[in-house]
Amino acid sequence: MATRKEHDFIGELEIDDDVYYGVQTFRAMENFHITNERLSDFPVFVNALAQVKKAAALANHELGLLDTNIKDAICKACDAILAGEYHDQFVVDMIQGGAGTSTNMNANEVIANIALELMGHKKGEYEYCHPNDHVNLSQSTNDAYPTALRIALYERLSGLTESMRILKESYAKKAEEFQDILKMGRTQLQDAVPMTLGQEFKTFELMINKDIERVLDARNLVRIINLGGTAIGTGINSHPDYKRIVEEKIQEVTGRPFITATDLIEATQSTGAYVQISGVLKRVSVKLSKVCNDLRLLSSGPRAGLNEINLPKMQPGSSIMPGKVNPVIPEVVNQVCFAVIGNDITVTMAAEGGQLQLNVFEPVIAYSLFNSIVMLNRAMITLAHKCIDGITANEDVCKNFVLNSVGIVTALNPYIGYENSASIAKECLNTGKSVYDITLERGLLSKEQLDEIFKPQNMINPHMHNKNKN
Amino acid sequence: MATRKEHDFIGELEIDDDVYYGVQTFRAMENFHITNERLSDFPVFVNALAQVKKAAALANHELGLLDTNIKDAICKACDAILAGEYHDQFVVDMIQGGAGTSTNMNANEVIANIALELMGHKKGEYEYCHPNDHVNLSQSTNDAYPTALRIALYERLSGLTESMRILKESYAKKAEEFQDILKMGRTQLQDAVPMTLGQEFKTFELMINKDIERVLDARNLVRIINLGGTAIGTGINSHPDYKRIVEEKIQEVTGRPFITATDLIEATQSTGAYVQISGVLKRVSVKLSKVCNDLRLLSSGPRAGLNEINLPKMQPGSSIMPGKVNPVIPEVVNQVCFAVIGNDITVTMAAEGGQLQLNVFEPVIAYSLFNSIVMLNRAMITLAHKCIDGITANEDVCKNFVLNSVGIVTALNPYIGYENSASIAKECLNTGKSVYDITLERGLLSKEQLDEIFKPQNMINPHMHNKNKN
Amino acid sequence: MATRKEHDFIGELEIDDDVYYGVQTFRAMENFHITNERLSDFPVFVNALAQVKKAAALANHELGLLDTNIKDAICKACDAILAGEYHDQFVVDMIQGGAGTSTNMNANEVIANIALELMGHKKGEYEYCHPNDHVNLSQSTNDAYPTALRIALYERLSGLTESMRILKESYAKKAEEFQDILKMGRTQLQDAVPMTLGQEFKTFELMINKDIERVLDARNLVRIINLGGTAIGTGINSHPDYKRIVEEKIQEVTGRPFITATDLIEATQSTGAYVQISGVLKRVSVKLSKVCNDLRLLSSGPRAGLNEINLPKMQPGSSIMPGKVNPVIPEVVNQVCFAVIGNDITVTMAAEGGQLQLNVFEPVIAYSLFNSIVMLNRAMITLAHKCIDGITANEDVCKNFVLNSVGIVTALNPYIGYENSASIAKECLNTGKSVYDITLERGLLSKEQLDEIFKPQNMINPHMHNKNKN
Amino acid sequence: MATRKEHDFIGELEIDDDVYYGVQTFRAMENFHITNERLSDFPVFVNALAQVKKAAALANHELGLLDTNIKDAICKACDAILAGEYHDQFVVDMIQGGAGTSTNMNANEVIANIALELMGHKKGEYEYCHPNDHVNLSQSTNDAYPTALRIALYERLSGLTESMRILKESYAKKAEEFQDILKMGRTQLQDAVPMTLGQEFKTFELMINKDIERVLDARNLVRIINLGGTAIGTGINSHPDYKRIVEEKIQEVTGRPFITATDLIEATQSTGAYVQISGVLKRVSVKLSKVCNDLRLLSSGPRAGLNEINLPKMQPGSSIMPGKVNPVIPEVVNQVCFAVIGNDITVTMAAEGGQLQLNVFEPVIAYSLFNSIVMLNRAMITLAHKCIDGITANEDVCKNFVLNSVGIVTALNPYIGYENSASIAKECLNTGKSVYDITLERGLLSKEQLDEIFKPQNMINPHMHNKNKN
Repeated sequence: MATRKEHDFIGELEIDDDVYYGVQTFRAMENFHITNERLSDFPVFVNALAQVKKAAALANHELGLLDTNIKDAICKACDAILAGEYHDQFVVDMIQGGAGTSTNMNANEVIANIALELMGHKKGEYEYCHPNDHVNLSQSTNDAYPTALRIALYERLSGLTESMRILKESYAKKAEEFQDILKMGRTQLQDAVPMTLGQEFKTFELMINKDIERVLDARNLVRIINLGGTAIGTGINSHPDYKRIVEEKIQEVTGRPFITATDLIEATQSTGAYVQISGVLKRVSVKLSKVCNDLRLLSSGPRAGLNEINLPKMQPGSSIMPGKVNPVIPEVVNQVCFAVIGNDITVTMAAEGGQLQLNVFEPVIAYSLFNSIVMLNRAMITLAHKCIDGITANEDVCKNFVLNSVGIVTALNPYIGYENSASIAKECLNTGKSVYDITLERGLLSKEQLDEIFKPQNMINPHMHNKNKN
Repeated sequence: MATRKEHDFIGELEIDDDVYYGVQTFRAMENFHITNERLSDFPVFVNALAQVKKAAALANHELGLLDTNIKDAICKACDAILAGEYHDQFVVDMIQGGAGTSTNMNANEVIANIALELMGHKKGEYEYCHPNDHVNLSQSTNDAYPTALRIALYERLSGLTESMRILKESYAKKAEEFQDILKMGRTQLQDAVPMTLGQEFKTFELMINKDIERVLDARNLVRIINLGGTAIGTGINSHPDYKRIVEEKIQEVTGRPFITATDLIEATQSTGAYVQISGVLKRVSVKLSKVCNDLRLLSSGPRAGLNEINLPKMQPGSSIMPGKVNPVIPEVVNQVCFAVIGNDITVTMAAEGGQLQLNVFEPVIAYSLFNSIVMLNRAMITLAHKCIDGITANEDVCKNFVLNSVGIVTALNPYIGYENSASIAKECLNTGKSVYDITLERGLLSKEQLDEIFKPQNMINPHMHNKNKN
Repeated sequence: MATRKEHDFIGELEIDDDVYYGVQTFRAMENFHITNERLSDFPVFVNALAQVKKAAALANHELGLLDTNIKDAICKACDAILAGEYHDQFVVDMIQGGAGTSTNMNANEVIANIALELMGHKKGEYEYCHPNDHVNLSQSTNDAYPTALRIALYERLSGLTESMRILKESYAKKAEEFQDILKMGRTQLQDAVPMTLGQEFKTFELMINKDIERVLDARNLVRIINLGGTAIGTGINSHPDYKRIVEEKIQEVTGRPFITATDLIEATQSTGAYVQISGVLKRVSVKLSKVCNDLRLLSSGPRAGLNEINLPKMQPGSSIMPGKVNPVIPEVVNQVCFAVIGNDITVTMAAEGGQLQLNVFEPVIAYSLFNSIVMLNRAMITLAHKCIDGITANEDVCKNFVLNSVGIVTALNPYIGYENSASIAKECLNTGKSVYDITLERGLLSKEQLDEIFKPQNMINPHMHNKNKN
Repeated sequence: MATRKEHDFIGELEIDDDVYYGVQTFRAMENFHITNERLSDFPVFVNALAQVKKAAALANHELGLLDTNIKDAICKACDAILAGEYHDQFVVDMIQGGAGTSTNMNANEVIANIALELMGHKKGEYEYCHPNDHVNLSQSTNDAYPTALRIALYERLSGLTESMRILKESYAKKAEEFQDILKMGRTQLQDAVPMTLGQEFKTFELMINKDIERVLDARNLVRIINLGGTAIGTGINSHPDYKRIVEEKIQEVTGRPFITATDLIEATQSTGAYVQISGVLKRVSVKLSKVCNDLRLLSSGPRAGLNEINLPKMQPGSSIMPGKVNPVIPEVVNQVCFAVIGNDITVTMAAEGGQLQLNVFEPVIAYSLFNSIVMLNRAMITLAHKCIDGITANEDVCKNFVLNSVGIVTALNPYIGYENSASIAKECLNTGKSVYDITLERGLLSKEQLDEIFKPQNMINPHMHNKNKN
């Protein structure tokens, strides 16, 4: 196989001539063998790197720092990557030392070699288009890498909110479908007061709706980029107008409203946005997990559980217990939530470990955030389509729990006072009799009054009560 | 000692007649002995409970549900608590079972008994003012407790931002004081490129400034209250107009812009705001800890460390090593940050554990959030006044690191290219010679060019470079 | 009020003459105002400090480094502290910078001043007994503080296992009491196969029994102390025989099998034991929380839940819902578990943050571990006495779940195969008929065979089945 | 493409005839698309599943429950898998609902179909060898899955300790190589007292050595398996002797000392071992991360840092700063540690979420533990070979820090007292003069005494001092 020689200041290496990456990528492959996942497993991130390099080339050209033909070749190379080509050349491990230098150099080298071929040169003839001097011109890993990360996070978070909206719609349909099914509300797993099953699902809908807003808020934080800061944010080696021009180019290339931070030194070392996004993903997970816990509780049984709803049967639930069907979809979603919560700690520790002018642990932050978003995304869609959409209600079970409950005694408080109600409740629990019968027996309220009080619509909403009618 | 008898549906108890709390508080004291901290250790929370009870009494009176004399007595009792009286009667453990019922009943009982005395009755004569039927009228623990919690968090977060502003000002003063001190920037603890010590502190200032904004955003989330939801958010036992009126009363009593949630079922069970606030406190802690790590690094030495800055000497640093002085203030602040990050996990698990219509674990959420805010508050003030304000710079140390550095070779890239620069750097490291001398020796740039390039203002800012001048 | 002047190398201070602590403690009080908890809130730790100081004095005396009268005075001072006196003089905040120097100096100063008075001198006449030169002789904070911490942890963990044994006994009694109550086992909240309620509680008993073993294993890790290492573990300023002799004295003074680490440099900086203990406390909490979750599930209802067991009624459960009783004890225990799990993250971050020859964050490690143990201790006892001991079973509810279940079809597999069983289960679920009846109808097994198979003892234990009898 | 029809009680499906898995695996693939990692990415786990199935077949045969020809075919199928064949048929996502049922059924189906072909039947002719009735005979997912998990963890942990030993050896070599290089010890990043660079690396060696012991302890916990418990641990559908016999078969098949738990109900639901293993992996990570932090500190510079050691240069460190070389290997190892610590939270939450007779979240526990071990394993080897082995010392830098230090004044305490020493230290810091000169000037000790005291061997070890010689 044909090879070419490349060198860096560590020394010279022979590289297969069919690969587009170069010596620094090669060293990184040797150095970092940690996860099984490479850059190419995260195509949105690869694309974002290409967008950064294209925007930089355009800005450098506009400033007269890059010849037109090199600019054109770099831009075409980036466009090819954005079209899905050459992704297999992005080979470095997602978890790497060096604050992303290997990722940045992987992009620089691949783009330089594609550009060289486009210009009619051979790979490795870097005098015509150099990974550092041309592709990386006016940049450092320390601004190029986080900018690409933020572009990719912006896309990923946008995608996540779309999946969240799908799940929200699924909840909403059930909220409507079940709006007339009366059931017992429960607090602390103890019978409380009546509500409808529709209200239960409406709550899920409203919860995720708020979460969508919070994700969008968090997405705003990664709109702020630090391109132009170069090595430590002081902008060393960049033209005074570069920062402004590259901001426009990034907007142009991505079609997204990215803006450059006012202070690039701060922006270069700050990981606040990542920590907050991770915190919001954790929030989303906490609530999603809670919904799944509820679904599993409400569908427990079928004979020795609550059995208020039926989840769709997705697969046999046991290798030994015939007929058993498990709530496998909520169960897998719960696990995704636990993984996201774990990732949040990883992000937190990595962020806390930053020192002085840079956080060198951005690669594990990127990896954790991408994984969390991808898994949550899949979990949302799975939950919507393979579980929520197929849920049916056991209306009789729900209704009977209300009829037999002691908790409805609460509705009598405004008429007979807390202490009378408590006494009725006690008798109910001791004798098994109903609230209705005991109240009548004690002559505290008339049948008509009781019937009025216990009307479902009066119990599941605020209700005008008038003691004087008593 | 005189006693009075009180009963609930568990049974009857004898209670010292000088205490204002009643039977349910008494049982809670017996049941919950977990932390060493009682409600009374969190006076802002006690006040918030009084504000909720006062607002409810006003609303109930306006709706004709509460007699004027009882309303007046309840309001006066709440005002006394808000004036700092009776706080010692708030005795239940902050961590408790029952989703805050014991806290709510502690408030109901104390207020009822104060009100009774104000009306000329004896403690315990609940027929004239009942903890449940009057003080808790139109409420449940499940709306009164979280509303009080949110009011208290709003106050606490407001206080926190004030402390953050104090710290920000301390950073800002140092940023200005040190604005002309040239020093080496460091990435990955390796020499990078020059900057000023003022820029270093300016970054701290800007970081905390962003954090203040995030805390204020998060504070907004607790503006939404669920008063009027009663037991599970359906508003059972409340007047249809109660929700609207009590919202006005809460605004009036607190002077803060609290608003009632659109959907009270969702608001009753959702812990999203707490999780997000905790996440933001974690973000603040991560960055505060990073600043303290930097301060400890920069002041390391004095002889065998970086020694760029001097922290004020607060106390002898060793029981065995005379003359040793340690960075004790950043060290204690780091530890607060770790505690806040730990509390975030507690909040997360408690939030995830909520089931169906209620999260029963709100007490530990409240406890963790209050503790985190209180500790952060103290840490911010301590750091500002006992450390940042007294920091001095070792200007010569800072400057000499720049003069001796290899990293300034970066500034030559635009003129001689990355590979030439790398070669010079290599020779520097091998021979100990300076970048300046080697570049001159190699004839790559003239003395005038080098002097221009290495001017501090050209290295710490973007700089127009013109290869053609070469 | 009378005062005395004290100085350290920071300067001179006036101190109230009635306090036993001195200038360094005073500075620490000024510097650290973080938690509301002082050393004196952790009496076991105060005692451990006295034990270290006494052992050191004895060793120094034996080596001829400390005069007999000073040694005697120091020992008597320590004995007084061990008898519970002077604890109010241990005033520094538990969370402090300086790796515990303030704690160590608080002990040194208090002991020196008590000793001075015992020798007939005045407080502050340190020429006769100096906090550093005599009380701290042959020690540094960096060996004295962790040694005291380990002694205190050893005691605390011992106490914890005693509480765990009490809880274990409570479980065991219920396991026996409920050994004949047949109930459905549940996996994934779905009906599985029969078991007894006794087996359910037996599991709790066995779980905590294993946890006791793990706590004892972990306790072993703090048996290794680093006294004699002085500043960084090299033993600078200590006599070559000191390490050996002080080890004997520690054993003598504490009556516990502490041993000195082989390598004191490693022992001085290592926090491995703390991280592992915290991990084991987390393990204990995870399982304790799981038990509480189960208790809350099994006692859910009373009408719209599983209602298999009744927890003792500890307090009214609602300020609005009369007669409601909540599982407040398991709920408060869950919250303790969440707090312990949060503390584990605090310990983890503090341990990870150690640098070079010392971990400066030991104070927050100590604080977190002590709090975790104290809270777990109280939670265990509370759960045992206020919940488990009073649990009763609803035998009929349990039995009916078994009789009505589909899950018992599992027991037919060995006789009729998984696919036949699955088909019967399906029909059951669709028609509401019983497994027994459908199997008979289909003629797959005889009545006698079914009766044999469905005997409780055959379903809750491995059972010899013989297809040929079919 | 040829297909075959398979059915379960959900319905019938058409399956490509070239795949060995069946209908239940197929459904699981449809249901679970969460991570990018399948069972086949964890070959040790696939092998462990084959070992369980083989052992069960042998035991069932011995009990007369399985015909010899079926037993033989199953065993051969398992042997083929253990030889690395058919791994691509293990296709289900590692994170799945159903507590591992899909994993177990994937194994059952693949083994059944391989066995069928070996017996001359076609795939899918399950009447001759059925996934449930033969391959899964006497088992449930709930005992087969955790047993396989434990077998795989045992192997993985064994492998981890081997990597840890390699790293330990690397440390040990450097400890020896650097044993005579005197340097300053540092506590709290402040100059403390002298030690050798060899002692610094010796500490790393001893730390990891203790960690190896802790991992081996933890490995012991997974020796306890629950095979024979079937559905919930009661052993339903298993022969009374099965449990004993299958234990022997597992030992035979694996060659490892696995033993069956005394109580299988407890063993079936307990996740204590996983939580503890995860806690120990966290401990290992905390200390590994601390070592990497130290390596990065000690190699900081080269000009504006500590620069005591040189890490081998692995790759250019910057895309903009020529000549910069970063500590990329410690950096990547730090990130692995953060990921493991995050995984620990995932394991914790999953373990806490278990309910009643089963923890349904074992798949995410398995996934997290395997990933943590694999990453730690790679990180250890990488650190050893690509960093530690190539470290060199800057002996002069180390020595000069000692000569210039103030910290050596500590060694004078035993001769002139803490207060005199503190005064000398103060003068040193103020004037820049050396401890040696000031002490002589003040006439506190003679030149001979000072030379004796400051001998390196006297400062880095306990030393007999005799005041009377003064």
